[in-house]
Amino acid sequence: MAKQLNWGVLGYARIAINSIIPAILKSSNAHLYGVASRSEDKLQNCKDTFNPEKTYTNYDDLLDDDNIDVVYIPLPNALHKEYVIKAANKGKHILCEKPMALNSKECLEMIEACKSNNVFLMEGFMYRYTDRIKKVQDLLSKNSIGEIKRVNSTFAFYLDREGTIKMDPSLGGGSLYDVGCYPLNFVQMVTQSNPIEITGNAVMNNGVDTTFCGVLKYDNGIIATIQSSFEAFDVNDSEIIGTKGIIKVPDTFKGNSGHIQLITHESITNIAVEESDRYTLEVEDFSSAIINFRAPFISIVETYNNMSILDNLLSIIPQ
Amino acid sequence: MAKQLNWGVLGYARIAINSIIPAILKSSNAHLYGVASRSEDKLQNCKDTFNPEKTYTNYDDLLDDDNIDVVYIPLPNALHKEYVIKAANKGKHILCEKPMALNSKECLEMIEACKSNNVFLMEGFMYRYTDRIKKVQDLLSKNSIGEIKRVNSTFAFYLDREGTIKMDPSLGGGSLYDVGCYPLNFVQMVTQSNPIEITGNAVMNNGVDTTFCGVLKYDNGIIATIQSSFEAFDVNDSEIIGTKGIIKVPDTFKGNSGHIQLITHESITNIAVEESDRYTLEVEDFSSAIINFRAPFISIVETYNNMSILDNLLSIIPQ
Repeated sequence: MAKQLNWGVLGYARIAINSIIPAILKSSNAHLYGVASRSEDKLQNCKDTFNPEKTYTNYDDLLDDDNIDVVYIPLPNALHKEYVIKAANKGKHILCEKPMALNSKECLEMIEACKSNNVFLMEGFMYRYTDRIKKVQDLLSKNSIGEIKRVNSTFAFYLDREGTIKMDPSLGGGSLYDVGCYPLNFVQMVTQSNPIEITGNAVMNNGVDTTFCGVLKYDNGIIATIQSSFEAFDVNDSEIIGTKGIIKVPDTFKGNSGHIQLITHESITNIAVEESDRYTLEVEDFSSAIINFRAPFISIVETYNNMSILDNLLSIIPQ
Repeated sequence: MAKQLNWGVLGYARIAINSIIPAILKSSNAHLYGVASRSEDKLQNCKDTFNPEKTYTNYDDLLDDDNIDVVYIPLPNALHKEYVIKAANKGKHILCEKPMALNSKECLEMIEACKSNNVFLMEGFMYRYTDRIKKVQDLLSKNSIGEIKRVNSTFAFYLDREGTIKMDPSLGGGSLYDVGCYPLNFVQMVTQSNPIEITGNAVMNNGVDTTFCGVLKYDNGIIATIQSSFEAFDVNDSEIIGTKGIIKVPDTFKGNSGHIQLITHESITNIAVEESDRYTLEVEDFSSAIINFRAPFISIVETYNNMSILDNLLSIIPQ
C-alpha cells in the first residue's frame, strides 16, 4: 500500500480546523485530499486556509470519491453512526471523534459494518498519544504506588459560547458525551477492567447534563470518580491513589509540557513531561496502522467497553 | 460562673491522650479535673503523664462527681449516645467526638436530653477552628470564585494498626463514620444547605466500609463528592470549584501551617495559612461558650443535619 494515505474530512468543524487538518498537513504518511461541508462559505474558508485537493458540498460525494483512503469524522455525536457505516460501506478506513456513538448498540453496528468491509475504525482519543500519558503508564507498570485503590479524573470547562451542538440534546450534547468520555477512558486505562457497579448524578439544563459526576466500582476493590462540566472553571486533572503513593496528573488530556507528580512516603517527585503534538501523532499512527495492517492504537474492544459503560452512566441522567 | 471549668475525660483514648488532654492543660479557661478509664494501667500512665486531680476506674463515678462541669467523650461511636445522655442527666456540658452518634434518631435523643437538662452539647469538629478554614470562609464570603458548582473533599489514610475499633462494625467502625464525616461537614459548610439526592458506593472489609465515595446533589445545582478510606495513601484535600475560579485546600482538616490556593483566570494566588492549635482553640471556645452562656461554635442544628445526611450515606453501604 502507498506510503501516504489520502484523508477526507467529513465536516469543517472546529476540531477539524484547529486540530486534525493541521495534523494531516504535518503528517508524513497522510495527505489532505478532500474536505466536505454543507456550507459554501466554510468551504471557501477551507480552500483559502488549507488548500485541499478537493472540496465537496455533500458528504456523500466525499465518500464516493475513490481516491480517499481514510475518512475523519468530526460530525455531531448523533451523526457518527450514520456516516461511519456509510464510509465503511464505501471501503474507507475511519477515524471518528469521541464518543464513538450515542450508545453501545450503535457502536456494535458500526464495528460490524467496518469488519464486514475490512476497514479500520478508531475512536479519536488523542490524549493517549502524549508523553504525559506514556509516563503515567510507565509509573503504573513499575508498580510505583502499590495496589491501586482509587482513581479520580475530571474534564470540565466553562462553556461561554452560545448555540453550540454541545447544548443540543438531539445531536448528542451534554458534558458526559462531550468531555466526560475522557475521564472514563482514563479510568478504564488505569483499572484495565470493567466496573461492576455504577452510580452518580447530574445537573441538567435544557435537556443536557451540564455537570456530571459518576462513581464506578470495580471487582478488584477500586473506586473511581469521573466528573465533567460546562458550568464551572476549567479542571483537567486526574489522580491515581494506591496503597503506597499517589500519581497526580495535571492537564491530563492536554498536549502541553509540564509535570506529573509521584508522591510516596519517601519523596515527592516531579516528573517532567514533554510537549506532544497529540493530533499529529494520532493521524500518523492511524495511517501507519492502515499502511502496515496492524491493529490501531485505541482498540475497538476498548471503545466498545467504554460505550457500554457510557450506556450505564447515561442511564443516571434524567431524560 | 467560674472563669475556669473543670473538665472530665471519659475514656483514656488515643485522641484524649494526644490531643484533648494536652489542649485542656494549655487552655486558660479549662482545668483537667478528672479522667476515667476501665484500665488501671492506663490510669497509672495518665497520672504519671498528666497528673489530673482525680481518676476513676468507672465512667459513672466520673459523671457522679459534682466538681466536674464539662465532660469530653472520646469513646467508640457506638457508646456516644449512652454516655452523652448519662452525662446530660448529671448536668454536665458535653464535648463529644465526631460523629455525634450512629444515626440521626440517636442524635435527636441526645439533643433532647441536653436540652431538658440545660446543658450544651457540641460535636468535636476541631478542624473548623483553624486559620486554614477561616481563610477558606473569607474567600467564599468575598465571592472569590463566582457561583459554586462543585465541591470535592477527601479524608483518607492507610490504616496499618491491628485491632482498632475503626474496623469493628459493632462499635461504629468504618471509614465514613471515622473520617468521612469530615469531608461531609466541609461540604455542608460550603454549600450551606442540605442535599436533595445522595448516591455513592463503598468497598467493604470485615463488615465495615474501608473506602467510601458519596455524591451529594443540592437544589442550587451544586454537586459534591466526599471520599474516605483506610486503604490507600493519605489524602486530606478539598477543592471548591466555581464559575470563575477554584479554591484548593490541601491539608483541609489539619492544623499545620501551609497555603490554600485561589486559582482564577487572572492569577494563581497562594494564601499563607498559620499553624493553629485547633484542639486548644476548641476546648477554650467550648469552655467560653458555657461560661458566657452563648451558643457553641458548631451548632447542634448543623450536627443534626450532618447526622441525617450520614443516615442516607450509610444506607448506601451494604450491611
